[in-house]
Amino acid sequence: MTEVQRRPGGRSARVVAAVRAAVNELVAERNPGDVTVGEIAERAGVNPTSIYRRWGTLEALMLDVEEARVEVKSPIPNTGTLRGDLLAYARQVAREITRPGGMAFLRAVLAVRQSGDTQHQSSWGPLHKRAAQLQSMLDRAADRGESAPALNDVLDCILAPIYLRAIFGNSKPREEHLAIFVDRALGPV
Amino acid sequence: MTEVQRRPGGRSARVVAAVRAAVNELVAERNPGDVTVGEIAERAGVNPTSIYRRWGTLEALMLDVEEARVEVKSPIPNTGTLRGDLLAYARQVAREITRPGGMAFLRAVLAVRQSGDTQHQSSWGPLHKRAAQLQSMLDRAADRGESAPALNDVLDCILAPIYLRAIFGNSKPREEHLAIFVDRALGPV
Repeated sequence: MTEVQRRPGGRSARVVAAVRAAVNELVAERNPGDVTVGEIAERAGVNPTSIYRRWGTLEALMLDVEEARVEVKSPIPNTGTLRGDLLAYARQVAREITRPGGMAFLRAVLAVRQSGDTQHQSSWGPLHKRAAQLQSMLDRAADRGESAPALNDVLDCILAPIYLRAIFGNSKPREEHLAIFVDRALGPV
Repeated sequence: MTEVQRRPGGRSARVVAAVRAAVNELVAERNPGDVTVGEIAERAGVNPTSIYRRWGTLEALMLDVEEARVEVKSPIPNTGTLRGDLLAYARQVAREITRPGGMAFLRAVLAVRQSGDTQHQSSWGPLHKRAAQLQSMLDRAADRGESAPALNDVLDCILAPIYLRAIFGNSKPREEHLAIFVDRALGPV
């Protein structure tokens, strides 16, 4: 039995997939702050204790769902030029944060930060996996002989204003704004 | 009696001052997400219904407290040069967002945004008052003959990365980072 449970595609993997799908549906349907573990369990057809045992808290589950979603929906671009990659990345970020339920991720991050969680004290915290992938994209550009900015410049110039506008501005940045953000990250020519 | 209540410094003003002080104390003492209207009322020595009547929701109260705090603690700088003003502004933002309880403001903004509040649909939403003050600072620089960036550039280049680092990075940007943010806002020389 143990062997079967550990097999990818076994019961365990099905539970994870069902729970993640339930979270994505629920945060898109309503105020994500109102979604409870009980509702997620019901929608996924699992026991709430399975959720607590695997993820610990609702916030940890939200972060996990976002990470899995980013992996699938927003693969790191590889367009052949750094400017092309950064523009594609900017469009991904703008699309994801402004989708219904997109802010649930930020809300979960703030909740984890405030509860003094120490799992994510590494540089860029809950973004660390994504940050490592972006660093590979920058390294690839440098290998091609392009002049690549530092990772912090990419996050400060592109990710930060898109998130800020989502939080305060109620609007998705237009294409010309994204181009300005990318040019800032690339720095003075 | 009505005349007395409306007088600045009267009972009404004392309630507002006591409630704001209670919020500032409580969010600095503990996880701001755990602060309740009941606790605020108890600390301020007022009835919870007074809080609901005046502010409506906990989130609206949090935004009001932040606005009042910014007014007092972070007056718009007037150093004589735009670069000096922007650097002073960047230091204010970094200091306020990283103070104990500083993230409570962002959390309240996210809560208001998610509940579909329509009071703050103006440009830059809950930041609109602050944005107008910053615009005056930029206009003053232009009047002196300095080349001033657009307000959005200031928010995108300075406010956004400081907030992003507070949310994800667990650290206050160092002085040299703030100088980089300011130079980006000022644009290519």
